[in-house]
Amino acid sequence: MNKDTSRTTPEPILLSDALKTFEALWSPRIVTRVNDYDVRISKVRGEHVWHVHEDTDEFFLVLDGELAIRLRGTDGERTVTLARGAVFVVPRGTWHKPSAADGASVLFFEPSGTPSVGDRHDAIPGHVDATTGHELGS
Amino acid sequence: MNKDTSRTTPEPILLSDALKTFEALWSPRIVTRVNDYDVRISKVRGEHVWHVHEDTDEFFLVLDGELAIRLRGTDGERTVTLARGAVFVVPRGTWHKPSAADGASVLFFEPSGTPSVGDRHDAIPGHVDATTGHELGS
Repeated sequence: MNKDTSRTTPEPILLSDALKTFEALWSPRIVTRVNDYDVRISKVRGEHVWHVHEDTDEFFLVLDGELAIRLRGTDGERTVTLARGAVFVVPRGTWHKPSAADGASVLFFEPSGTPSVGDRHDAIPGHVDATTGHELGS
Repeated sequence: MNKDTSRTTPEPILLSDALKTFEALWSPRIVTRVNDYDVRISKVRGEHVWHVHEDTDEFFLVLDGELAIRLRGTDGERTVTLARGAVFVVPRGTWHKPSAADGASVLFFEPSGTPSVGDRHDAIPGHVDATTGHELGS
């Protein structure tokens, strides 16, 4: 029993404290894990890159600021706008591009190992970190 | 492609709006789904019940108020206190009992079908809803 305790958080983590530990944009930190999922947080500003996760949905919760997500569907493109405290799930197989003109902080749930730039993507600009998430404090 | 779109959220949901749609305590609502996981929200006040999820971790994010979680370990009991904006994961196999003397709103991330009272539990008091989560708006 409790054999998995070592890989979970022994004490609560204030997200506001966790966000203070890094400055890098579009470079998610893994706050904690739930089974084989990561809870990641990221500071974002400007534009990410068009990408698609073929095999997983991706959950967004906006902690601060406002996030726009451009979505490419069979019937064209649309943009959803997430205010602070809004949640949204990008369905698997959906090309999308997040952006935040004025900056935002975002929480993600996704399977551990999910690349931040998806399985397929446009050319990755220099300001976007292609990663499966960094440990908090690293 | 996009074959799973129908079961996900077509538009962002403001958690503050979602919380206004119900009053029941300890009775989680499913806000959205991520693969085979639920994102649930709950209003809580007073004490839940001692219970254990044998096969899954359970993620807590406090949206409003303060949540205490009593945890039973091999070396005795302890309490963790989650302020607004704090996250915590109760590891699988860990007996726990949430409480919120002054009330709180909480977001959970757990596999769909996870019972709110775990796989084993003490006698369930009348104010605790034993459920795998209700649809939002139901």
